Amino acid sequence: MARVSVSVPVRWSDLNAYGHVNNAALLTVLEEARISAFWAGLGSQHPTAVLESGPGASQHTVIASQRIEYRREIPHLREPLEVSLWIGRMGGASLEVHYEVLPPSAGDAADAGERLPYAVAATTLVLVDAATGAPTRIPPAVREVWQRYTDEPVAFRG
Amino acid sequence: MARVSVSVPVRWSDLNAYGHVNNAALLTVLEEARISAFWAGLGSQHPTAVLESGPGASQHTVIASQRIEYRREIPHLREPLEVSLWIGRMGGASLEVHYEVLPPSAGDAADAGERLPYAVAATTLVLVDAATGAPTRIPPAVREVWQRYTDEPVAFRG
Amino acid sequence: MARVSVSVPVRWSDLNAYGHVNNAALLTVLEEARISAFWAGLGSQHPTAVLESGPGASQHTVIASQRIEYRREIPHLREPLEVSLWIGRMGGASLEVHYEVLPPSAGDAADAGERLPYAVAATTLVLVDAATGAPTRIPPAVREVWQRYTDEPVAFRG
Amino acid sequence: MARVSVSVPVRWSDLNAYGHVNNAALLTVLEEARISAFWAGLGSQHPTAVLESGPGASQHTVIASQRIEYRREIPHLREPLEVSLWIGRMGGASLEVHYEVLPPSAGDAADAGERLPYAVAATTLVLVDAATGAPTRIPPAVREVWQRYTDEPVAFRG
Repeated sequence: MARVSVSVPVRWSDLNAYGHVNNAALLTVLEEARISAFWAGLGSQHPTAVLESGPGASQHTVIASQRIEYRREIPHLREPLEVSLWIGRMGGASLEVHYEVLPPSAGDAADAGERLPYAVAATTLVLVDAATGAPTRIPPAVREVWQRYTDEPVAFRG
Repeated sequence: MARVSVSVPVRWSDLNAYGHVNNAALLTVLEEARISAFWAGLGSQHPTAVLESGPGASQHTVIASQRIEYRREIPHLREPLEVSLWIGRMGGASLEVHYEVLPPSAGDAADAGERLPYAVAATTLVLVDAATGAPTRIPPAVREVWQRYTDEPVAFRG
Repeated sequence: MARVSVSVPVRWSDLNAYGHVNNAALLTVLEEARISAFWAGLGSQHPTAVLESGPGASQHTVIASQRIEYRREIPHLREPLEVSLWIGRMGGASLEVHYEVLPPSAGDAADAGERLPYAVAATTLVLVDAATGAPTRIPPAVREVWQRYTDEPVAFRG
Repeated sequence: MARVSVSVPVRWSDLNAYGHVNNAALLTVLEEARISAFWAGLGSQHPTAVLESGPGASQHTVIASQRIEYRREIPHLREPLEVSLWIGRMGGASLEVHYEVLPPSAGDAADAGERLPYAVAATTLVLVDAATGAPTRIPPAVREVWQRYTDEPVAFRG
């Protein structure tokens, strides 16, 4: 039901020679949003330790695939991008994080009607056993928490 | 019919804290392969100036979308990755570059049977008018050249 | 007299395979601090348009040299780094931005006595004519503003 | 007596919005040259395992400081940069790697007289005990090898 919203500053070094955020750099922006959401958004209130896991944890997630649709070029911005993200699909051992990358939310001009996304994207994460690398089922307690952050899959055009 | 093969060195800074090539950094590797192919591979023999175009050219390409499937983690490698790329689909104003990211080709051990891809990917490029940003049709002379570099679309699992 | 303090989030992709912020990535952190300071710190109150200048402006700055001393490894941090920066030297056509990279300021544990810098650094910027690339003198009005942000040069050990 | 020469390709993502190689990205280029030299240059002929060491080794090097002087802007180049590097100073537990970043060596136009460096730089590395992090003396056998790669310190202007 709930989406998480994370602010991610664009860096000067994210720009390409055309003055727009580079295509690969935007994946780094999604990564920052994803890590921040699991830490600060979901993590602060809920037992999502599985996704905060470092090298020593018994389970961690690996990225299986990504898909991104670039809708408008992103210029250098003084204010951070807003990344809205949620769980668009959940399987037995995997989940899809879906994203909308939005203009900075600050300022009067940015009313809802004008805030078309710069990009939409999805990342498929697989939960694996840290020792063997084999996929493992999402534990029920974690699934229950994540269920609260599910929403409709993002609509790709392509 | 023909695929182009490009060597792209992995950088130490492409590695994440787990010692593997970062998910977004691999998109940068694809970008290097794509630019190099259009310059050195296709570009050296054929009139592909449209894709080599800088800010002053009348047409250039923009990235509309990307999809990538990570199959195995990539460690730090002394030898460059080999990226095999080709045109997997061509539309009226767009083309899809498809890729296989392969282990370094040097050495006896790397016979064909063992060279499973680290990742497969596709990038959709749209040809646009530099002044207006509007999609423009691929000119027949360019289409004819690109036709020689088409092959079957890469097989995604997901 | 005054130093400017800027928060810069560390990104996951700034980490190297040892789990510490990469040496070159820290220069990107300094760059973010520098741009942010000239925009948001000095720029919001003062006529520093010269340093905010884009490709069309008549003067801009180029980086002539940099020096950085790494004192402690920087781990992945949930809270942003604090970069304290000021003008450590000003010449006729150049200025030196000096920096201390500090741990996040939030939290009780971070009292002044414990906040030893992770790194100290200096960047020499030269003011150049945008058309010719030749160094040009800092205009008096700009010099007057910048004077307020000068302080003692940072103390390098090496 | 001997300098090592390493080819490092510039990436499209190394360029900033002005179309030149970003100041921090050039440190990444130096890093690639340094790692490659210790691996492929010195490493292939000599017992320099100490510098090739991964997390499990008993000694490794940490970067204590860096200094770089940017002399000319570096555009996007089809051919790799040539980085010439050598040991400019050696202490009891530390060494300084010095560098000249040169235009691509290929082609008739690039005769010696015209190949002014884009940048010169120095990196101070300290040899430390992997377990304690304390500086440790360079072993005599390693010192003897490294001695062969020493040369005059690079001449900074600033």
